[in-house]
Amino acid sequence: MNTSRVEAFSDGVLAIVITIMVLEMTAPEEPTWDGLRQVLPIFLSYLLSFVYVGIFWNNHHHLVQLAGKVDGTVLWANLHLLFWLSLIPFSTRWMQQNEFAQVPVLIYGLDLLLAAVAFQLLRMALVRQDGPDGDLAQALRGERKGKYSPVLYLTGMGATLIQPWLGLAVYAAVALLWLLPQRRMERKAAELEG
Amino acid sequence: MNTSRVEAFSDGVLAIVITIMVLEMTAPEEPTWDGLRQVLPIFLSYLLSFVYVGIFWNNHHHLVQLAGKVDGTVLWANLHLLFWLSLIPFSTRWMQQNEFAQVPVLIYGLDLLLAAVAFQLLRMALVRQDGPDGDLAQALRGERKGKYSPVLYLTGMGATLIQPWLGLAVYAAVALLWLLPQRRMERKAAELEG
Amino acid sequence: MNTSRVEAFSDGVLAIVITIMVLEMTAPEEPTWDGLRQVLPIFLSYLLSFVYVGIFWNNHHHLVQLAGKVDGTVLWANLHLLFWLSLIPFSTRWMQQNEFAQVPVLIYGLDLLLAAVAFQLLRMALVRQDGPDGDLAQALRGERKGKYSPVLYLTGMGATLIQPWLGLAVYAAVALLWLLPQRRMERKAAELEG
Amino acid sequence: MNTSRVEAFSDGVLAIVITIMVLEMTAPEEPTWDGLRQVLPIFLSYLLSFVYVGIFWNNHHHLVQLAGKVDGTVLWANLHLLFWLSLIPFSTRWMQQNEFAQVPVLIYGLDLLLAAVAFQLLRMALVRQDGPDGDLAQALRGERKGKYSPVLYLTGMGATLIQPWLGLAVYAAVALLWLLPQRRMERKAAELEG
Repeated sequence: MNTSRVEAFSDGVLAIVITIMVLEMTAPEEPTWDGLRQVLPIFLSYLLSFVYVGIFWNNHHHLVQLAGKVDGTVLWANLHLLFWLSLIPFSTRWMQQNEFAQVPVLIYGLDLLLAAVAFQLLRMALVRQDGPDGDLAQALRGERKGKYSPVLYLTGMGATLIQPWLGLAVYAAVALLWLLPQRRMERKAAELEG
Repeated sequence: MNTSRVEAFSDGVLAIVITIMVLEMTAPEEPTWDGLRQVLPIFLSYLLSFVYVGIFWNNHHHLVQLAGKVDGTVLWANLHLLFWLSLIPFSTRWMQQNEFAQVPVLIYGLDLLLAAVAFQLLRMALVRQDGPDGDLAQALRGERKGKYSPVLYLTGMGATLIQPWLGLAVYAAVALLWLLPQRRMERKAAELEG
Repeated sequence: MNTSRVEAFSDGVLAIVITIMVLEMTAPEEPTWDGLRQVLPIFLSYLLSFVYVGIFWNNHHHLVQLAGKVDGTVLWANLHLLFWLSLIPFSTRWMQQNEFAQVPVLIYGLDLLLAAVAFQLLRMALVRQDGPDGDLAQALRGERKGKYSPVLYLTGMGATLIQPWLGLAVYAAVALLWLLPQRRMERKAAELEG
Repeated sequence: MNTSRVEAFSDGVLAIVITIMVLEMTAPEEPTWDGLRQVLPIFLSYLLSFVYVGIFWNNHHHLVQLAGKVDGTVLWANLHLLFWLSLIPFSTRWMQQNEFAQVPVLIYGLDLLLAAVAFQLLRMALVRQDGPDGDLAQALRGERKGKYSPVLYLTGMGATLIQPWLGLAVYAAVALLWLLPQRRMERKAAELEG
């Protein structure tokens, strides 16, 4: 089985996840600058979730592209990742509706953590299918950001226990870390093509 | 006509079906662990519906992939399947809003049953188009899970008449049965390519 | 410019149009058979709109497939068609919320009429681009269902002036007419490939 | 990395952006012509936003098509553009809910302005990747509409300070300007293929 339909379905789900959060952004009650200022935290949390879905889409794109084909295990590992990502609009909304209280911010971090774990499981399923000496195993050798990120989300959740805004700051910092391009995999992908 | 646009359209519809259910998950009223515990049944029914849409997408992927082309009958058999699947968010929501009362749980099972029947009709339309000795007919010979599943949904509906949670347990058990990979079709698909 | 991205974008829009109508189907208040009976008209109007979007998708699929490429005029003719189709959830919902009163049923018919006219304009834009002796012009020569359908929608709107349910019956009859497969174009498409 | 998945993801996001605005169009309260007349400004603002998303999709289609491949910077420049476009349903809704008051109309223009700037940044990222003598740099040499449009949105925002409806008229005029086809890029694209 080739990867094109897995990519198409994942693109569809992620495109919807990234977009429906806008449906849930309640417009300011007053048509004034002050009304706008009141929705600023909502806007910023939308931005954070948008960036996270973008990061996962980006990494997914890089990962699946290196794999030539997919088996049944990969299909379900992919759906498992999409499941946790599909809950991002839910956990974002819960934070927004409760002025970023502790439990919703913890759950938001847990959702990111479970998505990051699901991403590692997908990666393992793809490597296992490709074999230990396959292109994917080689391309991923030494890739460490993916392995560290669950620890970072746990740190964010810990910080939330002290103060929710501190937890959100950690989540935002992890997002910034991911925005640095995936040079390693890109270089490998270029080599494979060249 | 080739199958690519049928796949793309089906992927789009299923990606939306699987994702919009999150829009309908009302966030807990209280930002507490107790609030979260109250939405647990809603979360579990979302998980069940997510898995079912995943199963149908997976089987659809395997089936259409084996077919080289599609005619008008197949297009409508496919839309018929998408129709029943598009109602899953509706039947899931009705169950959730009524604490899994008997009639909504029955209707949920009926929706799954009608989707399973529609899947068999799509399969028949594809086999008929391909001819009795085509690759698809051969690949599907002996495939029995698809034929049995309508009976299993009927059993779930029967169990619902005794007790709704029993019915839901049967639906969940059928989903688990489907999660076992489609070894037969995958092997055949591998042979065709090899 | 080739047609693949026009198809992908149209598939996306139509997949969303066909699916979001479910979001707008309010679940029955009571978890009973009686509650279900009360939403039957809503279910039937969803079915009608689903079938219409399916018909337009089907015809769009056949039409664009015959065209090898698209220019700027075709892109906008396509967006014009998508505009009227994107309003189907709106006009369906207005009918549902007002128990199929005259004005909403008229507007629903007007939406179908404008979509049908937009389809003819798209067809003309594709034929003009392809030239009077192109494959598309030949394939479409003698195709009459598309030309007649605006007249049929006008008839439905006229019938609505007498009695809204009569108008809906005409819209449903036109849909049935379209469900008969597009033999002519399919045969031509088969010839072109063969 | 080739452009196909970037196109697919962008198509998905734009298809949803263009369609979910319909979800937010509240149906007229009364099932009468008068009820319909009351939602006319909402309909017109939907039309304007639909046309704008169509314009951006169209320009995106032309631009990405000329680029053979995408790197990490382009992926994020593309997501940045999608971010501002994803806010169009939000800014449209805010205008609609406040009878086109000054601040929401200003914010709508700001959203268009930021999307236009993001489009220029995407264009720069693609040209930089392709090199100063690449096909894209040549095709875009002399293309001026894209460069002028931020100035036009600023003009619209200025006009809004005088009178919101004047600002909306400017936004509508800029949309009309864009509807004129992109002859230059199309001709170049035709040359490259020919």
